[in-house]
Amino acid sequence: MADEEGQPLTPAELTQFLHGHVPMSRAMQVRAVAVSDDEVILAAPLEPNLNHHGTVFGGSSATLALLAAWSLLHIRLQSAGVDCTLVVNRSSNDYTAPMTGEFTANASSPAADDWSHFLHGFRTKGTARISVVSVLRQADAGGVGEAGRFEGVFVALAPAHG
Amino acid sequence: MADEEGQPLTPAELTQFLHGHVPMSRAMQVRAVAVSDDEVILAAPLEPNLNHHGTVFGGSSATLALLAAWSLLHIRLQSAGVDCTLVVNRSSNDYTAPMTGEFTANASSPAADDWSHFLHGFRTKGTARISVVSVLRQADAGGVGEAGRFEGVFVALAPAHG
Repeated sequence: MADEEGQPLTPAELTQFLHGHVPMSRAMQVRAVAVSDDEVILAAPLEPNLNHHGTVFGGSSATLALLAAWSLLHIRLQSAGVDCTLVVNRSSNDYTAPMTGEFTANASSPAADDWSHFLHGFRTKGTARISVVSVLRQADAGGVGEAGRFEGVFVALAPAHG
Repeated sequence: MADEEGQPLTPAELTQFLHGHVPMSRAMQVRAVAVSDDEVILAAPLEPNLNHHGTVFGGSSATLALLAAWSLLHIRLQSAGVDCTLVVNRSSNDYTAPMTGEFTANASSPAADDWSHFLHGFRTKGTARISVVSVLRQADAGGVGEAGRFEGVFVALAPAHG
């Protein structure tokens, strides 16, 4: 994904994009903290994402992880000059540990072979699917220790399919 | 789950409980439409749950389904007189069709044998797990046609574990 001048998005621009297009991301107070073709890290504070036990609600952590994975794919597709509709088709979540403060979701790029296969599939058939993983962590854990893991299968559809 | 007089919760009371304890449910404008020991149906409008394609955001539909499943288990546990912490441990979502209007998640009770096994496990070991399914539908589809399906594995922990 690039801004109007064709530059890669900054974290502030991705935050603005999400808040403008996905109201849930605004309600969750999601903000992007790192954005590149290799990795997207999103963060959210505890307060708007509480469950009734006073820890992070599973719906919020799953949603943050989904947004990170979707954003990473969206950015990579825009960098590759691919115009498509990108939707989630299937996802799974493991909730390993409760989180009691600000939390992050770190989506990392698919293996190079999987990415090539995905782009080739899209360009020849007008649709293709690919899997992306996001790892959840409590922010004050200093980037160590997984609190959860999301894996999503996303489908890219040529605009004609949309 | 019962109110102060020990009566089963009404849909309005479940809505109020969720809005009071899970801020995301309020942001999503979730409301309960049917509540019993056998089934919980929650609904949410499109507007606060949009994605940037103008359909229901996958994070919102997964969250509504999770809330329905959690609410059903919570209600059944309270009816059974079980005091516990109930958390989601694992979940999977299939997104079958895009939804373009108000949507519902319908969680239905586990098989009687699974429920007995779960209660027995909890009472003897202080912890037990059980799986619940929620089905997503677009509200104006008149209750036919699945748009998605959630399956969650939940863990009940005795308060001492909490």
